[in-house]
Amino acid sequence: MASITANHPISGKPLISFRPKNPLLQTQTLFNFKPSISKHSNSSFSIPVVRCSIRRRPEYTPSHIPDPNYVRIFDTTLRDGEQSPGATMTTKEKLDVARQLAKLGVDIIEAGFPASSEADLEAVKLIAKEVGNGVYEEGYVPVICGLARCNKKDIDKAWEAVKYAKKPRIHTFIATSEIHMNYKLKMSRDQVVEKARSMVAYARSIGCEDVEFSPEDAGRSDPEFLYHILGEVIKAGATTLNIPDTVGYTVPEEFGQLIAKIKANTPGVEDVIISTHCQNDLGLSTANTLAGACAGARQLEVTINGIGERAGNASLEEVVMALKCRGEQVLGGLYTGINTQHILMSSKMVEEYSGLHVQPHKAIVGANAFAHESGIHQDGMLKHKDTYEIISPEDIGLNRANESGIVLGKLSGRHALQAKMLELGYEIEGKELDDLFWRFKSVAEKKKKITDDDLVALMSDEVFQPQFVWQLQNVQVTSGSLGLSTATVKLIDADGREHISCSVGTGPVDAAYKAVDLIVKVPVTLLEYSMNAVTQGIDAIASTRVLIRGENGHTSTHAVTGETIHRTFSGTGADMDIVISSVRAYVGALNKMMSFRKLMAKNNKPESSAVV
Amino acid sequence: MASITANHPISGKPLISFRPKNPLLQTQTLFNFKPSISKHSNSSFSIPVVRCSIRRRPEYTPSHIPDPNYVRIFDTTLRDGEQSPGATMTTKEKLDVARQLAKLGVDIIEAGFPASSEADLEAVKLIAKEVGNGVYEEGYVPVICGLARCNKKDIDKAWEAVKYAKKPRIHTFIATSEIHMNYKLKMSRDQVVEKARSMVAYARSIGCEDVEFSPEDAGRSDPEFLYHILGEVIKAGATTLNIPDTVGYTVPEEFGQLIAKIKANTPGVEDVIISTHCQNDLGLSTANTLAGACAGARQLEVTINGIGERAGNASLEEVVMALKCRGEQVLGGLYTGINTQHILMSSKMVEEYSGLHVQPHKAIVGANAFAHESGIHQDGMLKHKDTYEIISPEDIGLNRANESGIVLGKLSGRHALQAKMLELGYEIEGKELDDLFWRFKSVAEKKKKITDDDLVALMSDEVFQPQFVWQLQNVQVTSGSLGLSTATVKLIDADGREHISCSVGTGPVDAAYKAVDLIVKVPVTLLEYSMNAVTQGIDAIASTRVLIRGENGHTSTHAVTGETIHRTFSGTGADMDIVISSVRAYVGALNKMMSFRKLMAKNNKPESSAVV
Repeated sequence: MASITANHPISGKPLISFRPKNPLLQTQTLFNFKPSISKHSNSSFSIPVVRCSIRRRPEYTPSHIPDPNYVRIFDTTLRDGEQSPGATMTTKEKLDVARQLAKLGVDIIEAGFPASSEADLEAVKLIAKEVGNGVYEEGYVPVICGLARCNKKDIDKAWEAVKYAKKPRIHTFIATSEIHMNYKLKMSRDQVVEKARSMVAYARSIGCEDVEFSPEDAGRSDPEFLYHILGEVIKAGATTLNIPDTVGYTVPEEFGQLIAKIKANTPGVEDVIISTHCQNDLGLSTANTLAGACAGARQLEVTINGIGERAGNASLEEVVMALKCRGEQVLGGLYTGINTQHILMSSKMVEEYSGLHVQPHKAIVGANAFAHESGIHQDGMLKHKDTYEIISPEDIGLNRANESGIVLGKLSGRHALQAKMLELGYEIEGKELDDLFWRFKSVAEKKKKITDDDLVALMSDEVFQPQFVWQLQNVQVTSGSLGLSTATVKLIDADGREHISCSVGTGPVDAAYKAVDLIVKVPVTLLEYSMNAVTQGIDAIASTRVLIRGENGHTSTHAVTGETIHRTFSGTGADMDIVISSVRAYVGALNKMMSFRKLMAKNNKPESSAVV
Repeated sequence: MASITANHPISGKPLISFRPKNPLLQTQTLFNFKPSISKHSNSSFSIPVVRCSIRRRPEYTPSHIPDPNYVRIFDTTLRDGEQSPGATMTTKEKLDVARQLAKLGVDIIEAGFPASSEADLEAVKLIAKEVGNGVYEEGYVPVICGLARCNKKDIDKAWEAVKYAKKPRIHTFIATSEIHMNYKLKMSRDQVVEKARSMVAYARSIGCEDVEFSPEDAGRSDPEFLYHILGEVIKAGATTLNIPDTVGYTVPEEFGQLIAKIKANTPGVEDVIISTHCQNDLGLSTANTLAGACAGARQLEVTINGIGERAGNASLEEVVMALKCRGEQVLGGLYTGINTQHILMSSKMVEEYSGLHVQPHKAIVGANAFAHESGIHQDGMLKHKDTYEIISPEDIGLNRANESGIVLGKLSGRHALQAKMLELGYEIEGKELDDLFWRFKSVAEKKKKITDDDLVALMSDEVFQPQFVWQLQNVQVTSGSLGLSTATVKLIDADGREHISCSVGTGPVDAAYKAVDLIVKVPVTLLEYSMNAVTQGIDAIASTRVLIRGENGHTSTHAVTGETIHRTFSGTGADMDIVISSVRAYVGALNKMMSFRKLMAKNNKPESSAVV
C-alpha cells in the first residue's frame, strides 16, 4: 500500500510519504457536517485533511477511466488562456508551460489551435514531440491535444501537430445554439449534426483514436438537440464530450443538472467521458466545474490562474485544491492526479509569460492567500492557529524564505547559485546560468540581503526573455519636475552592432522608449505598463511588464465571433532601477513581436483563434 | 407600475425606465433550461435579461422583510475588507466609501469595529452621522453597523458610534466551534451561550433595536449546538443571525444545507433574518453565498472587489450581478436593492483606497471583463455578438470613452472640467476643483489627448490624498546603467517651510525616497510598490501605489487569533513622470501614517481588529 504519494518539489524524485509540517494536518479523522450531535468534544479536533492522493493514477484509455472516482484535469492555458488580450506566448514559453503542466501531472494538455497559424502549429508539434514523449513517474505521459473547427483542413493541421505525441488527441467543436447556427454558421440543425458526425469520423479515419467533441454554447442550446447531436458524434467515434458554458452564465445547480441530463439522455453516453468547460463571467466557474464533476463529468477543463477571455475560466488551482480538501468528505470521493506542490511555480510562470497578474486576494495562489503566514511579527500567536489554515502552504509549493537551506551573499559562487535555483524549482545551466550569475553579482554588490524573490525576479528576466533581436546595453536618464526628461539608450542588434540614440519625453520612461523607437523603427502602441517591487524595501528589484501592439501588426480572426483582432505582445524586465527595468521590458516585448513576425512571414494567411 | 427603476449615473436623479443600449437585451422572454423540446426555433432568441429591478425596496424593519424575495446586501468592506494587509483607510477615505455604498443602495454598511481604536470609533461615528442620516431616494437610508465582541465595553463603544444613525445596528460575535471555545475562549458551551445571550440582551437594553449575532466558525461548529445558541440569542433579542464560513471551507450544497438546517431547527428562527458571510479560500464564496440565499438567507455579507483577509470575501459585484442576471430564472426570484450602475465607481474607489488591485480577469469589474468591448478595432464584428454579453457594460456604470459628451482640450476651462468630472461621477468644487484644474492644465500642455482615465487618475491623486503633512514641490533625478542614481527633493511642511535634500541610491526611486527620508526623518519599511499606466501610449499618466509600515509603528491585536499585527499604510500618486508619481505616492503614505499617529496619540491603547 505504500505507493508513491508525491514527488520531491525540486528533484522531482518520488517521496514515499508526504509529511505536512503541522502534525495536526496528519489527522485522518474528518470533520463531520452531518447533523448528528457530537457527544465527544474531542471530535472537534478533527480538522480538514489536506494530503497528496494515495491512489495511483489509473491507466489512460481515451473513452474509459477504470476508477469511477478519478477525475481528469484538462488544462487549456495554452489555448483558451493564451488567447486572452496580451497573453500571447512564444513557442519557447509555450514549451516551458507544457513542461510545467507535465510536472503538475495534468492528464491532457490542450497545446493550441494548429490551424490558426504556422506559429501555433509549430508550437503544438514541438510540445507533442518533447512533452508528449517525456518519461514520467508511473508511466504517466500527458495527452497532447490540438483544437480544430469542424472542417478537414483544421483537423488535418491538428493531426499534423499532435500525431508525434504518445497520446495524441484532436478536439473539434461546432456551435449548437440556435442563434449561432442561424447567424454565424447559417446552417440547419441537420446540417450541423451531419458536419459534426462526419468530421469526428474523419478525425478517427486519419488515425486519431482520441477525439473530443464540444457543442459550443451548450449552456444555451436546446437540451433535446444536444442529446441528439452528442449521440451522433458518439456513434461516429468521439471519446470525450465537452460541455462548455461559453458565456459563464449558469449557476452551479443548473450546470450540474445539465451534465446529469446529458448523462441520462444521450444514447451511448456510458461509452465516453463527459467534460466541463466553465467561463467565469459571474464568478461561479469553480463552483460550476465542481457541480459538473459531482453530476458525473470526469474531465474538467481549466487554466492556470483562471486566465482566459473576459473573466477567464475555472482555475486549475481552485478546482484541484477543492477536490483535494473536500473530495472525500463532500464531493463524492472524487480525486485528481495533480501533484499540487507544483501549483505555485506553475502560477508564477503563467503570470510571467501571459502578463496577466494575479490579485493579492486570489484564492490559493494570491500573495495574501497565506498572508497570516507572512514575515509580520506575530507576538501572540495562537497555539491552534493551524485550524484557520485549510491548506498548508507547502502543499502548493510555497516554502517560506527563512526555511531555505542555502543563503546567498555577494561572495557566493556559480555552484551555490545553481543549487539555490534548483531549490527554488529552476534547473539552469550553461549560458543561462552564466547570465544569471553575472546579474546576481551586480545586485549582490548593491543590496545587503538577496532574497529568494529577488532571485526569481532576476531569473524571470534572464530566462523568460524571448530570443534576442535587440539587446539593451545602456540607458541614462535625467528627469524631474524642474526640467525636461532626457534619455540616452544604447542597444545591440542581432549582429552585435551598437546603436545609440537620445530623446526627450514627458517622463524618463517616455523619453527612454522614444529613444528605443528611434533605433528599432517599428511603430508600436504601448497598451499597458505596470511595475511591482518584488521584495520589500526601497532597494528592491522592480519587475516591469508592458503590453504592446504593432501598428501594422498581426491580425487574427476570432473563430467564433468572426471578429478581426490584433495580436498583442507582453514583455518583462527586472532591475533595481525602474527606468532600466522598464526599458528591458519594452525591448523584450519588441523582440517577442519581431520573432513572431519572422514566423508569420513563412505563412501569409491571417491567424485565427477560437473560444469554446 | 411605472415605478422608479434606476437613478441617473451622474445626476443621481431617478430615471423612469432603464434603456440598455442593445434592444435585444430588452427581450423579456427567458431562456428555458427545462428539458422540454423547443419547437419554435425562434425561441432561441430569448436571451438573458439584465435590467434594473422594477420592484420597490421594502420598508426596513430589523427582523422582518415584507417581500419574501428581497435580499439585503450587507457590505463589510470597511470592517472585514479594511483589515486585509495594507488596506488601512483614513477616516476621510472611509467616509467616501460609505457615501459610495449609500449610492449603491447597500442595505447595511458595517462601518468598522469601534472598540478597536479611537480612530475606528471616530470613523464609525462620522459615518453614522453623515451617511446614516442622508436623504436618499424612496426614503432609503442605510443601516450603519458597528462590530463588537461579546463584552460590555465593546458593545458600549459600538453603540456610542452607531447611535447617531437613523438606523443603527450592533453586530456582536462569539466563537462556537469546540476548538475555539476550548483554546481561545477557554469557556464551556454553557458559558458561551450565557455570554452570547446576556450580551445580546445588553445591546438591546442600552437602546439598540437592531442586533446581529454571529457564531464565529459556524461552518465547523456542532449543528445542534448552533441551533441551541441561536435560539437563545433570538430569545434575548437578536434580529439578524449571521452564519460565517470563517475559513472558506464549505462547498455550495453543503453551505446551503447548513442554512436550511438552521432555518429548520432553530427555535424562533421565523422571527429573525438569517445572513451569510463566506470567505473565499477555495474560490467558492460567491457560489456559497448564492446557495445560502436560495436556502433562505435574506442578508448577504459581501465586500467590494471581494477584498478581505487571505483570499477575501464574497464580492458584492459578483453576488449582486448573479442575482440580477439569474435571480428570476434560477435563483428563486430573489432580488436586491442595489443600483448596479455605481458598481464600477465603487470598485475603483476601493481599489484606490485599499491598495488591493483587481486582476484583469476578475469577474464583473476586471479590466478584461468586457475586453471584447475595448478600443481594439473590430473589423468583422458579428451582428448578434451581444448574445455573448450577459451583462451590458453600462449596467455596472462602464461608459466607453468615445461616448462621453464632453471632450476636453488644453483650452478647456474650469467649468468644462467640473462638468466632465460630474459626468464621470465625481462632484468636486472649491479648492479640490482648483487643484485638479491646475494639474489638468499642466498635463494638457504635454499630452495631445486627455482621456477620461487620465482625468480619473489625476482626480484620485488630488482628491484621494490624505491630509497634507508634507507636500512634494519638486524632484529631480539622474540615473541609468552608466552612473550613480542621484535625486534632489524639495518638500513643504505643514507650516509652509521648504526643505531640500539630496541622496544617491540604487535607482532613481530609491534615491528620491532616501532624500525624502532625510527630510521627514520617520523610519519606515517599504513593503510594496506597484505602478500602472492608466491609459495607453508611452505618454500615459502613471499611477503608483506604495505600502509602508512604520518601524515604531502601530500594533494592533487581532480579536480572533490574539496575534499582534502591525498597521500598514498605502499611498497613491499619479503623474506623467514615474519618478514624480512614485514620490507623490510615498509622501502620501507617510502623510497617512502621520495623521494616524496624531489620532493614536489621543488613545494610548493598542488597536484591535476582528475576523468573523
